[in-house]
Amino acid sequence: MAENQLTQLRSKSRNVKIHRDLGTVVIGERINPTGRKAVLEALQAGNFEMVRQDALAQVAAGAAVLDVNAGVPGADEPQLMVEILRNVQVVVDVPLCIDTANPAALAAALAHYEGKALVNSVNGEARSLESVLPLVKEHGAAVIGLCMDDGGIPKTAGERLVVAARIIERAGALGIGVEDVVIDPLAMAMSAESGAGRVTLETIGLVVKEFGVNISMGASNVSFGLPDRKYVNATFMAMAIQAGLTCPITNPLQVEVSTAILAADLALGRDELGMRWIKAYRKREKALVKA
Amino acid sequence: MAENQLTQLRSKSRNVKIHRDLGTVVIGERINPTGRKAVLEALQAGNFEMVRQDALAQVAAGAAVLDVNAGVPGADEPQLMVEILRNVQVVVDVPLCIDTANPAALAAALAHYEGKALVNSVNGEARSLESVLPLVKEHGAAVIGLCMDDGGIPKTAGERLVVAARIIERAGALGIGVEDVVIDPLAMAMSAESGAGRVTLETIGLVVKEFGVNISMGASNVSFGLPDRKYVNATFMAMAIQAGLTCPITNPLQVEVSTAILAADLALGRDELGMRWIKAYRKREKALVKA
Repeated sequence: MAENQLTQLRSKSRNVKIHRDLGTVVIGERINPTGRKAVLEALQAGNFEMVRQDALAQVAAGAAVLDVNAGVPGADEPQLMVEILRNVQVVVDVPLCIDTANPAALAAALAHYEGKALVNSVNGEARSLESVLPLVKEHGAAVIGLCMDDGGIPKTAGERLVVAARIIERAGALGIGVEDVVIDPLAMAMSAESGAGRVTLETIGLVVKEFGVNISMGASNVSFGLPDRKYVNATFMAMAIQAGLTCPITNPLQVEVSTAILAADLALGRDELGMRWIKAYRKREKALVKA
Repeated sequence: MAENQLTQLRSKSRNVKIHRDLGTVVIGERINPTGRKAVLEALQAGNFEMVRQDALAQVAAGAAVLDVNAGVPGADEPQLMVEILRNVQVVVDVPLCIDTANPAALAAALAHYEGKALVNSVNGEARSLESVLPLVKEHGAAVIGLCMDDGGIPKTAGERLVVAARIIERAGALGIGVEDVVIDPLAMAMSAESGAGRVTLETIGLVVKEFGVNISMGASNVSFGLPDRKYVNATFMAMAIQAGLTCPITNPLQVEVSTAILAADLALGRDELGMRWIKAYRKREKALVKA
């Protein structure tokens, strides 16, 4: 068993600690035009009000970090990314997760960002490692490493561990500490491949045992194509936390998943006498009374 | 890692297999007067209609085995236990779990029972081992072993493993195979002791790694004293299944917990292309339309 790593992220004035002995850190996923038509159209029109509202609502709902994606087809991504970051930083003071596959947008975002950001993401491909890791090092950021490479997404947990090991090794060679590499085991649709969830859970177990690193994951893919997705997502989230997931990228406004995260922390003894659970319960009750 | 054990239970004509590669086996908990005043009063009045209804409803809701408890204060427990068994067996053909701390009631139940029953329970106390295990052996039953003994319920997972090992060893000395010992790690209230859930999950992990035996558990105690208990129970159930729980004793009519069990099986690749999940979803939808 490797020692559990401590990843620290910073906004202008706030520090967020990610560690397996602490409560799960929710990274809010909603500032992302992909699949959200209203956000896409607002951004295309140069309107950032929805982005600011998404930032405020997610932090109010418990997100400790916000993912920011500027993937608007045809837009100047570096410029748009910085504009979104600016707008988010006006309304909330939490660390940000810079979500882009565009090296120029990443460079612009990191140059603009004040604090210690999380970069989403690098993967095991040579081209990705070479373009992303030097920027992470230069700006003193942390990075999410996806368990995939030129060969695609490996089928087995053992093969995904090999990719994780390569990312951690390459980061280390550049002077990025293992505590600043967060691994994403990748979660695919179980409706297409029955063993997809199990491979993800096993990958988390292997990576945590070997490196003790923090684990991130977008957990809604697993339920793609199934009915009542929110219940599948909620249960899978709890099981992934049990396996070692520490900083999921999720929608904090989605009550089933958020409740499962709180209950999982409670079950793992990370919520002293259930005080956070009780507080969240009261908040849910108030929301019901208002509704 | 020990090899996963296969426990088989039988009713008159049905065989139920419990194994970590198969779907979770739900043992229905409702035929129990403890804490259910209506059942208690019906049994005191010699009325078994409610017991028969509880048997039918639980099997319809997915219970593969039914727990039967005859703990009515002041009643002749051996006689009442056999009477309840008779009534249950008239309406359903599933293996039964004989739930009593009374050796005479256990002996009477096993003498009456046709098939291979599950005995609930033995524990690590000398008196319990000596009175229960010979009956289990004599009748070719399987048995649930609770991780507690004369010293009470151990605080750590390591100490609970020691009790489990003692029960398995004593059963083996009498010729009861390890496949016929199901271990209950015990789950206590997290509102009283923040680490209570974690100790249970860790105990499951240790016992499974060491012996590969099947694991049973009543999972509703963990949420005692907390609000929104059903969500805590559902999440804890999924995490326990991830840890190795294979045959929980639960209320199959409680939809949050039952849904979490199905989702956990799905996540662990025990539900080919989600067919059981989809079937259960359709059943929930139909129930909503009716309601």
